[in-house]
Amino acid sequence: MKHSFGSDNHSGVHPEIMDAIVKANQGYELAYGDDNYTKKAENAIKNLFGCECEVFFVLNGTGANCTSLKHVSDSFSAVICSDHAHINVDECNAPEIIAGCRMITLPNCNGKISAENVLPKLSNIGNQHNSQPKIISISQPTEFGTLYSEQEIRELADMIHSAGGYLHVDGARIANAAVAMNKSIRQITCDLGVDILSFGGTKNGMMIGEAVVIFNKRILASGNFKYIRKQSAQLLSKMRYIGAQFCAYLNNNLYLKLAENANGMAKYLASELENVECVKITSPVETNAVFAKMPEDKIKKLLQKHMFYIWDEEKSIVRWMCSFSTTKEDIDEFVNDIRNL
Amino acid sequence: MKHSFGSDNHSGVHPEIMDAIVKANQGYELAYGDDNYTKKAENAIKNLFGCECEVFFVLNGTGANCTSLKHVSDSFSAVICSDHAHINVDECNAPEIIAGCRMITLPNCNGKISAENVLPKLSNIGNQHNSQPKIISISQPTEFGTLYSEQEIRELADMIHSAGGYLHVDGARIANAAVAMNKSIRQITCDLGVDILSFGGTKNGMMIGEAVVIFNKRILASGNFKYIRKQSAQLLSKMRYIGAQFCAYLNNNLYLKLAENANGMAKYLASELENVECVKITSPVETNAVFAKMPEDKIKKLLQKHMFYIWDEEKSIVRWMCSFSTTKEDIDEFVNDIRNL
Amino acid sequence: MKHSFGSDNHSGVHPEIMDAIVKANQGYELAYGDDNYTKKAENAIKNLFGCECEVFFVLNGTGANCTSLKHVSDSFSAVICSDHAHINVDECNAPEIIAGCRMITLPNCNGKISAENVLPKLSNIGNQHNSQPKIISISQPTEFGTLYSEQEIRELADMIHSAGGYLHVDGARIANAAVAMNKSIRQITCDLGVDILSFGGTKNGMMIGEAVVIFNKRILASGNFKYIRKQSAQLLSKMRYIGAQFCAYLNNNLYLKLAENANGMAKYLASELENVECVKITSPVETNAVFAKMPEDKIKKLLQKHMFYIWDEEKSIVRWMCSFSTTKEDIDEFVNDIRNL
Amino acid sequence: MKHSFGSDNHSGVHPEIMDAIVKANQGYELAYGDDNYTKKAENAIKNLFGCECEVFFVLNGTGANCTSLKHVSDSFSAVICSDHAHINVDECNAPEIIAGCRMITLPNCNGKISAENVLPKLSNIGNQHNSQPKIISISQPTEFGTLYSEQEIRELADMIHSAGGYLHVDGARIANAAVAMNKSIRQITCDLGVDILSFGGTKNGMMIGEAVVIFNKRILASGNFKYIRKQSAQLLSKMRYIGAQFCAYLNNNLYLKLAENANGMAKYLASELENVECVKITSPVETNAVFAKMPEDKIKKLLQKHMFYIWDEEKSIVRWMCSFSTTKEDIDEFVNDIRNL
Repeated sequence: MKHSFGSDNHSGVHPEIMDAIVKANQGYELAYGDDNYTKKAENAIKNLFGCECEVFFVLNGTGANCTSLKHVSDSFSAVICSDHAHINVDECNAPEIIAGCRMITLPNCNGKISAENVLPKLSNIGNQHNSQPKIISISQPTEFGTLYSEQEIRELADMIHSAGGYLHVDGARIANAAVAMNKSIRQITCDLGVDILSFGGTKNGMMIGEAVVIFNKRILASGNFKYIRKQSAQLLSKMRYIGAQFCAYLNNNLYLKLAENANGMAKYLASELENVECVKITSPVETNAVFAKMPEDKIKKLLQKHMFYIWDEEKSIVRWMCSFSTTKEDIDEFVNDIRNL
Repeated sequence: MKHSFGSDNHSGVHPEIMDAIVKANQGYELAYGDDNYTKKAENAIKNLFGCECEVFFVLNGTGANCTSLKHVSDSFSAVICSDHAHINVDECNAPEIIAGCRMITLPNCNGKISAENVLPKLSNIGNQHNSQPKIISISQPTEFGTLYSEQEIRELADMIHSAGGYLHVDGARIANAAVAMNKSIRQITCDLGVDILSFGGTKNGMMIGEAVVIFNKRILASGNFKYIRKQSAQLLSKMRYIGAQFCAYLNNNLYLKLAENANGMAKYLASELENVECVKITSPVETNAVFAKMPEDKIKKLLQKHMFYIWDEEKSIVRWMCSFSTTKEDIDEFVNDIRNL
Repeated sequence: MKHSFGSDNHSGVHPEIMDAIVKANQGYELAYGDDNYTKKAENAIKNLFGCECEVFFVLNGTGANCTSLKHVSDSFSAVICSDHAHINVDECNAPEIIAGCRMITLPNCNGKISAENVLPKLSNIGNQHNSQPKIISISQPTEFGTLYSEQEIRELADMIHSAGGYLHVDGARIANAAVAMNKSIRQITCDLGVDILSFGGTKNGMMIGEAVVIFNKRILASGNFKYIRKQSAQLLSKMRYIGAQFCAYLNNNLYLKLAENANGMAKYLASELENVECVKITSPVETNAVFAKMPEDKIKKLLQKHMFYIWDEEKSIVRWMCSFSTTKEDIDEFVNDIRNL
Repeated sequence: MKHSFGSDNHSGVHPEIMDAIVKANQGYELAYGDDNYTKKAENAIKNLFGCECEVFFVLNGTGANCTSLKHVSDSFSAVICSDHAHINVDECNAPEIIAGCRMITLPNCNGKISAENVLPKLSNIGNQHNSQPKIISISQPTEFGTLYSEQEIRELADMIHSAGGYLHVDGARIANAAVAMNKSIRQITCDLGVDILSFGGTKNGMMIGEAVVIFNKRILASGNFKYIRKQSAQLLSKMRYIGAQFCAYLNNNLYLKLAENANGMAKYLASELENVECVKITSPVETNAVFAKMPEDKIKKLLQKHMFYIWDEEKSIVRWMCSFSTTKEDIDEFVNDIRNL
């Protein structure tokens, strides 16, 4: 495919990252994370956050999210999340099966849940008949490409901490959030009270591999994450190839540059479509996703030439994702094709 | 590290496979296995077996084993395996946690279990108080590098089929077995009654990715493996990079050539050590592993220069693994160093 | 306590049932359900339904519901139920933990879910990323004491059968439903397409024990429920004391008479309160529950003399349950006390 | 049946306990353990132990064992037990399914495991690839009716405590052990370092209900057992009927008297058979079980008149259990029938 707006994971691997993989293919290395590439990558991430934390590389986003949830939950715990959260919609019961707890879903506003809606769900703590809410899990940016503000994150963190629980962030596209908010990843996670983070890279130019970053000291103290990773089949033997990717991803702020491109292209797409009559943007374009309403017949025509997904068939809403490799030419051609529908 | 006898997964990725990864890094591809590389690789494996089967790519060996077991087990099932099976020793409860059933371990003879020892474990079928044995899982080659004969495999298959169950093969090194037995992988799996196979590649020159191959038609019919893969966090988004690897791995019988080298080097190592007094080979060298007894002090000295693992501290037994990239020079230097201890 | 409107399980055991327990306390009996009392009770239930079915006694309502769900679900299945369903609200993650699947909750109307709301949840069947809806679970009567009509049940059954799934009924108070609908239990369950039923007795005069009744032939064929019961710790050793209870419960339609009393008392309570100004009945009184809105201060005063639960603090709604042993005098006194508030 | 040597749970309920059940059937009581009978019974057990502990009533032995194991284990934990342990042999995967961890079985000597055999299993603690041994579970008395000495228990407790783990005792017949050792239950459990106890009553004259008694303060502190009980479907609504039983069971040392009878009858049976040629006692008769070897044809003949189970068909070994209600006449008749074979 020449280009796809279907998902940012339809894109390939950024050349600098592929280069790092090829360069790591030298000689012999210890397996299961005891190699030097992994150590370097762990340190690079620790430096990125600059606070006490632990870093564990896992294999994919579902793995990162569900081992994170497992690490901070009990069998009677409930995870509060948006009804559109990836963990709720796209992981085929993995949270229940891997983490072994319950999802409590809240209606979302542009992909986000609010402290106001969370509060009543915390009322049954201590009652043996009820699931015990222990985790709030948010996606930053959300599945709609929108952003929680710093204050919103802090509020959710404070609320769940008061209840003795933890805030998890699904950061599959966390770099896109950081760029959009003009903050460091640290400033939008641990500085705001986030306890555990799924730090994604695959959607932003890596091949495979995510990192679970644990900030909360109580969680760190248990030292148990390594067992959970192993038993969840998330420990790679030839780990050096994940370590090498993360090193390249963080080197010279590559991760920010790639996210900047993706976000910028989405903004450009949205602005170009502003005056196109048949298209109505339906969610704020804050990172690299554009949601739009179009007449059904035009969607069908456009799909003949371009790859993207229909988000909501009933409402005739489509989703266009931009990636690190989307170019101005890709957008121009796309917009032109829309105009000519 | 210049060379390691620690594990065949201490080696890197074979250049032809790395090349295929780099070449796959072109343009956009659908995610989650809907890409062309994955389809080609699936077909290549189906052709390899030449029989009705389904192929699912997963992320690692534990993932392949445990999703396979989950696919053929119920919550009241038991898996019969060797006490030294990888699933029993090295996966940190993953079979219980992912597959959700019980391990019944049997004592091994050179890594193998026998039909004779399995038989009494099948006696309680139908009794509501007892775990219901439903799967025999064997590693071919075993964790000791030894081989089940064709007849031994057929016997175990017949026995568990009579009991209404399934035979699973952990084929993390199945290519090494095929080469050693001078048979095709098909001839030593589905032709003998194997129902489901963990088809490994990482230990033999790949970077990441294993395949679960389902032969049994009753299992195939359910069509449920895809859900199990997804919810076990074994589905990669950028799957093309696993597909590309398997294509290269199977192309021109590369997988056999690589296994031939590994096996050959192990044989060469064993033969060179035949007359070395301080070394006693303790298991038949049938594939790419050499197990040997050495005096403790000599082990310690050797470890200062070479990487390998002590298998049994008490019995002073070490394990030396050869890989696709082990060279005659590596062996010669190693043997020389042993002689000079 | 002299009387309680808190729950129908605050009442004791009906004398005829207690008598049966005492009479069963003679000599020795086989354990784990191989005794004669259990066999008689199983037959009594089979006769009650008059169709091909299997009967398994378990220990409590959560046990009955969750082993039922486990029996008909896979790890990737989802159970569609009301947001107020007992399995969703009052079982502390037991469905996820025992059955191992996901709850998809729908908003309720007087405790009931509608086929219309269920339909969109069935749209993702076959998509590997999504939980697979396989069970609809309804409570009859609902947690609000309301009733699904025969047609509503049949519609839900047809809908889930078309999707290849099953309809489960939580019948903790199924006798109250039968009496209220002036139908036999058979007519409101298997005749309408119900596949598996939690047949309760404890809330209606028994001491302990529920029955899981399986109607669907595909489910029956597996013969696996006995293992699920055992491994879920729902198999009693001295089972005769459950068998004896069910025999007495069904004998001479005792179960209907007891439910008639409970329903009748609730109706009487509601009618007596019709013209009491400070009380507003908030749900249709169709079985043995009365939900009412009262001023907060009057609730508090009433609680000083009578036992009952506040259902919704915010909305100032209370729940009054009548049981097999509630008397006209209990109601008269209660109503009088309300009038005097 | 007039009498059964099949199991101590073939017997009925002791009259004093049945009486207590009948007497508890008065008026209304709060459900789920908030009633007065439950509180009294909890206090009676706490007084029995005279130390800081918590008491939770559950429904049966499997429930008591598996909720106990769940309470003290993680998903990567392993439970070390005898290969003949009830949890390993007779609970149909319940430990794996409810507690969610792995069983590591050791060969037994007269039903017992030894500290010597446990030790090597503790060697892999901290290694992410391996299941982490955290619990030793022993049955006291064992499934062979034999007894761990006080010193043996203390040794196992010390060993697992040193490894940061816990000692669980399956005390389905703990009263029989106490009587046989001429000690209080406290002296043979918490005084020796036992952390959590399944305190059984059903096999010794109760109808239903066991207690989980938690001694270890670290475990107590979590306060989580109540959720585990609920979600494991082990919380009875009409709990008063379990509370009443335990009160009667402990009142005037009834539990000891009943166990004394059972033990005494087993001793008597064994002594009467001492000079019967066709019978050879195969395990020390220390509590209420007699294991004996008899010629196969004589077993078959005896089974025509008496109920008991063949323990080991191959070795021609039978198990005869005596209960609280076994009489000297039962034994005399039985021995006479054996003599006349």
